[in-house]
Amino acid sequence: MQVSSPTDLPEMSLNTQSYNASIPTRRPFLTRQLIIDWAEERYRSRAFTKDERIPARPGLLYLVQKGSIRLVGNAHISASRNKSSKLQTNDTITDEAFLGFVGAGQPFELVAQSPFTLQAYAHADQTTVLWMYWHDLDNWPHFRGEVLDAFRYQHQRKLLWLSTLGQRRTIDRLFGFLSLLIEEFGEPWINQENPEVRNGYYLPWPLTHAQIGSAIGSTRVTVTRLMGKLRQQGLIYIQDDNMICLPTQSEQSQS
Amino acid sequence: MQVSSPTDLPEMSLNTQSYNASIPTRRPFLTRQLIIDWAEERYRSRAFTKDERIPARPGLLYLVQKGSIRLVGNAHISASRNKSSKLQTNDTITDEAFLGFVGAGQPFELVAQSPFTLQAYAHADQTTVLWMYWHDLDNWPHFRGEVLDAFRYQHQRKLLWLSTLGQRRTIDRLFGFLSLLIEEFGEPWINQENPEVRNGYYLPWPLTHAQIGSAIGSTRVTVTRLMGKLRQQGLIYIQDDNMICLPTQSEQSQS
Repeated sequence: MQVSSPTDLPEMSLNTQSYNASIPTRRPFLTRQLIIDWAEERYRSRAFTKDERIPARPGLLYLVQKGSIRLVGNAHISASRNKSSKLQTNDTITDEAFLGFVGAGQPFELVAQSPFTLQAYAHADQTTVLWMYWHDLDNWPHFRGEVLDAFRYQHQRKLLWLSTLGQRRTIDRLFGFLSLLIEEFGEPWINQENPEVRNGYYLPWPLTHAQIGSAIGSTRVTVTRLMGKLRQQGLIYIQDDNMICLPTQSEQSQS
Repeated sequence: MQVSSPTDLPEMSLNTQSYNASIPTRRPFLTRQLIIDWAEERYRSRAFTKDERIPARPGLLYLVQKGSIRLVGNAHISASRNKSSKLQTNDTITDEAFLGFVGAGQPFELVAQSPFTLQAYAHADQTTVLWMYWHDLDNWPHFRGEVLDAFRYQHQRKLLWLSTLGQRRTIDRLFGFLSLLIEEFGEPWINQENPEVRNGYYLPWPLTHAQIGSAIGSTRVTVTRLMGKLRQQGLIYIQDDNMICLPTQSEQSQS
């Protein structure tokens, strides 16, 4: 089973001493064959193809067994310019925002709350998800604690995410956003031909410029332009298959 | 002891059926005199004046006993235009982002993670905070579960927050942001003189336009202009002491 591990980027790594002291690693639970067996016996495990929507319901707990999930939020709310209909709730004009990934071994849940809706999509092919009721966890109190700790970790990541979204310049929000994603989900990249120049970490899943724009409150066109700028400055680089890479810090100062 | 309760706005309320089924209310733990006594005996409880920084350290758990906390994030990261210093980490140019409130009865923790720092400030006068180590919670396993459930709830709120920040128009982000805050922390407002027109919910703490701008990736000037627009459209109104109010939905359609 593929379990993505938190990467340690030299300069942007977790402050492991203070962080790990209180927050456990993200990998423990799905290594437990017990839970997987339990779910499979009850037909509560299913594989999804890329971009297929997970029919997740509020009140249930979901665990990504393999692959990764893309969380998306819709705000069915708009400060309309038209005075006669002061609150638009027209589904056709909603903005869909990319809210992040949930990787293998991580839990997620979707809470429906008017006027917002959250959705989950398989972001990679062969993404497998299992689900349970919260009261099922009564059987495994320790596992329940691990799930809650994982949500605590995810909450901390979202606070950092919000920190970068508060930056005024779009290019700063873009770079902060990419850095956080690659820090959390990145995998090491070593260039065989010239290991001096192009080492770093890459996001193992593609992300469109429209999706990035939806996360940082910008447009596809602007993201494309600013990604070009970041590349020119050597702050990011693009690998085969459009994978976004972040060079290691030492290299940034070299080049 | 003052414990703020989640309000139920008619149209924007929590989907109580699905939501409360899985997420407990936010009020339970500090009603427990036990915890407060325990902290006070150990001098682990302190009152702060408005805008005083809480000297919170990573690895500790904090609980707001009274008043409210303002969380603020700093991104010490910037995609510099200057090619010679590709990664600016100059403290003087950082943007400080408002990340939300933590009300009475709620826990918080600050995780230091380069290049981001989180800070907590007393947002109201006489805000009292107590603290403990995570291992102190081993004495109270049930309380530990409640703390973790509270973080789970906060995480869900941040996902909704991110959903509104993904909206392209700044006025939509502004209205979504205010709606979420007032939904979570709002207190009922009843106009004695003309209860037909001006009922609603108000945010019980002031928030400057600069602070709002820092949360939605905009500027003080733009927020001031758009707040005027929202008022003209009757989507918000301002009470005494600059309190931001959201009229009840029925009223919005009436007027």
